[in-house]
Amino acid sequence: MSNRLDFSKLEVGYDVPAAIGMDEADIQTPCLVVDLDAFERNIAKMRDFCRETNMRHRVHGKMHKSADVAHYQIDHGDACGVCCQKVSEAEAFARAGVKDILVSNQVRDPAKIDRMAQLPKLGARTLCCVDDITNVAELSAAASKHGTEIECLVEIDCGAGRCGVTTTADVVAIAKAIDAAPGLKFGGIQAYQGAMQHLDNYEDRKAKIDIAVAMVVDAVEGLKAEGLECDIVGGGGTGSYYFEGASGVYNELQCGSYAFMDADYGRILDKDGKRIDQGEWENALFILTSVMSHAKADKAICDAGLKAQSVDSGLPVIFGRDDVEYVKCSDEHGVIADPDGKLAINEKLRLVPGHCDPTCNVHDWYVGVRGGKVETLWPITARGKAY
Amino acid sequence: MSNRLDFSKLEVGYDVPAAIGMDEADIQTPCLVVDLDAFERNIAKMRDFCRETNMRHRVHGKMHKSADVAHYQIDHGDACGVCCQKVSEAEAFARAGVKDILVSNQVRDPAKIDRMAQLPKLGARTLCCVDDITNVAELSAAASKHGTEIECLVEIDCGAGRCGVTTTADVVAIAKAIDAAPGLKFGGIQAYQGAMQHLDNYEDRKAKIDIAVAMVVDAVEGLKAEGLECDIVGGGGTGSYYFEGASGVYNELQCGSYAFMDADYGRILDKDGKRIDQGEWENALFILTSVMSHAKADKAICDAGLKAQSVDSGLPVIFGRDDVEYVKCSDEHGVIADPDGKLAINEKLRLVPGHCDPTCNVHDWYVGVRGGKVETLWPITARGKAY
Repeated sequence: MSNRLDFSKLEVGYDVPAAIGMDEADIQTPCLVVDLDAFERNIAKMRDFCRETNMRHRVHGKMHKSADVAHYQIDHGDACGVCCQKVSEAEAFARAGVKDILVSNQVRDPAKIDRMAQLPKLGARTLCCVDDITNVAELSAAASKHGTEIECLVEIDCGAGRCGVTTTADVVAIAKAIDAAPGLKFGGIQAYQGAMQHLDNYEDRKAKIDIAVAMVVDAVEGLKAEGLECDIVGGGGTGSYYFEGASGVYNELQCGSYAFMDADYGRILDKDGKRIDQGEWENALFILTSVMSHAKADKAICDAGLKAQSVDSGLPVIFGRDDVEYVKCSDEHGVIADPDGKLAINEKLRLVPGHCDPTCNVHDWYVGVRGGKVETLWPITARGKAY
Repeated sequence: MSNRLDFSKLEVGYDVPAAIGMDEADIQTPCLVVDLDAFERNIAKMRDFCRETNMRHRVHGKMHKSADVAHYQIDHGDACGVCCQKVSEAEAFARAGVKDILVSNQVRDPAKIDRMAQLPKLGARTLCCVDDITNVAELSAAASKHGTEIECLVEIDCGAGRCGVTTTADVVAIAKAIDAAPGLKFGGIQAYQGAMQHLDNYEDRKAKIDIAVAMVVDAVEGLKAEGLECDIVGGGGTGSYYFEGASGVYNELQCGSYAFMDADYGRILDKDGKRIDQGEWENALFILTSVMSHAKADKAICDAGLKAQSVDSGLPVIFGRDDVEYVKCSDEHGVIADPDGKLAINEKLRLVPGHCDPTCNVHDWYVGVRGGKVETLWPITARGKAY
C-alpha cells in the first residue's frame, strides 16, 4: 500500500526520519525502527500456533495502526482480517484494502454509526460489538439506509471491567434483537479479557481466563438453545492466546503486541517462569534515540522523551545494555544514568518502549531495518485516528 | 496559515473531527477543543504582564506545536517569537512564517545541524543552545557552508538536571568560542529551571529560582568581564515567570502552558495559596469525550483513552463536574465512576488533560469553539515533529 507515496519526494528530517537504503547510523532520531527479521519471525511463530490449534487470527490493528503491517500479517501470517477500536481506524484500513474488519468496540455516536455502515461499500466485511440492546435499532437503521450489512458480536465483560454485558440472559436478548434486525447479522461473541494480559504469573492469568471461558461457554450454550450459532467467538491477547486456543470454545484470536513486543509485556512469565521476551517473542520494535548532551559526567541526555513514547506502563528499557539505564523522561529528553561515562555524543541506542500501542500512536512512520540498512518505510496509516 | 488548506474538502470523521460552523454537540470525539474566549483571555493576561514588567516573551511552541496558535500569540500577545525543542519543529514554524525561532535545546546530529543552518534562508532568525564547546565548531561549519548565521545561547543547568553547564567558567569558555566562530553570533544565556515549575508551594518554587538567578547573575557578570554582553537572558515558565520577571537579570520569558492550562499545572498554588487554575489562568484546552458504554450501572465508559492523551502527570479531570470521576485509562477507553448513574450514552464531557504538551502531540487538530459553535480548526503543524 505504501507504494502509493512517492518516497523520493519526502524530505528526510522534515517529512520522514529516514530514506530507503540509508545506513541505520544515519536515521534521524527519535523514531520507531522495526527489526524486520525479528518481526517476521514473530509473525511466522503465531501463524504456526494458529495452524496447529486450528484457530483463526484476527490481528489487532489498534496496536500498530499500519496498513502495511496488517497486509503482511494477512499475506504471511494467515490473518483472517483485523480488529481495531475506532471507526476512523476501520476507515483507514478499509481504504488501504483490508477486506475483513471488526471494530472490537461499541459504536454509539450517530455520525460514527453512519460512517461505519458505509464501510462495506469499500469492499470490507464490517463487524462491530454491541453491549446495549438500544444500539441494535441504531445500527440496523444505518445499515438499512445504506443498503449494507453490519455483523454484530455481543460483547461480554469477562473481567476487564469496561464495555460488555455480564449475564447470558443479556447476551441472548441482544443476540435475538440483532438476529431480527434488518441490515444486521448476528456474528457471535466478543470476549476479550484485557485486564489479565499483563499479570506476571502464568497461573494467575490462567485462573482469570478460566472464569472468562466459563462465561463464554454458558453464553454459547444459551444462544444455541435459542437456535443462534456463533460464527465468531473472539478474544485472546499476547498474554493469553494459548488459553483461548485450548479452550474448545473460542475460535478467533485477537493478538496485537506479539508482533512488536514491549517492555511491559516482556516482563510477564510463561508457564516455565521465563519472561516472554526471552524466547516466546522477540523485541522487534524500538525507539531509536541519540545522545545529545553529556555535560554531567555520569548522566547522558537522549532525544526521546514523552513525545516519542507513552510511559503509562513504565519507562523504556535500553536494549542490549546493562551498563546504562533510562531513568527519567520529560517532554523531549530522556535522562540516562551512565555511571562510567561510556556514552558518546550522537551515540544511538535502541529503547524497548514501555507500552507499544500508545507509543506507535505518536509516530508517523516505522523505519524497517535489516542488516544495518533501512529496507522500508511504513506509514502509520491510522495514527491519530481516534474518532 | 491554516487557510492554505481547503477545509471544505476534508471529511469529518476520517480527516478532521469537526467542520467549521458545526454545533459543538456534533463534534466527533475524542478530540481537542479550545475554548477560544478563555484562550484569548490567557494570551491577553500574559501580554499585560510582559508590558508591565518590560519583559520580552518568546512563547514556547513545543507546548501547542501549532503555527496558528503561535501567530495568534505574536499578533495579539506581543510575543517576540517562539522557542521549540526540535529542528523539525523549527522547520515547521519557519515554513509557516514564524520569523524568530529558538531551538531551546542542544543540536548535535550532523544532519540536524545542517538542516538548522538552512532555516535563515526561510527568513527566520535562528537560535539554538550550546552546552559543549565541541559543538561550536560543528555549528560554525554548517552556518559557514550555507552562508547563514546561527545565534547561540549558552545553556546553564540551573536545577533541571538535564542539558547545560553548571559553572560560570564553562559558560564563559563556550561563549568566547561562539563569539570567535565564523557564522555564529553569541546571543546570551538559556537558563530554564524546568524541575521546579510543578512544585505546589510558591515559596518552594521561589527558593529554587533564587538559586537559578544567582547562577545567572554570576554568569552574566563573568561574561561582562570578558566584554560579552547578553542580548537574551532567557527562561521562565508558567510556574515561575513572575520570579524571572522580577529578577532584574532575565529579559525573555519562555512560557507555554499558560495559554491552555492543564490539570497538573492547575494544582500548583500561587502566593496566596490559591490553585493557579482558580483565577490566574483559565482552562482553555479540553479533550472532548463521549460516553459510549454504560453496561454497568455505576460505571460509564468514555472514548478517550491513552491514544487521546498522555497520563504521565496523572489522569484527566472532568471539567465542571464533581459527581463523576475519570478513574482509569486504557488504550481507547476511560472508565468514569458514575455512582448515581447520571451519565447517558453519547453524553459529552470536557476533560482537562493531565499534561497538555504530550497530549497535544497525539492529536492532529485543535477545534476552536465559541458560544457552542465550531469557529475554527487549527492544524497541529508540528505534531510528531520530534526528529
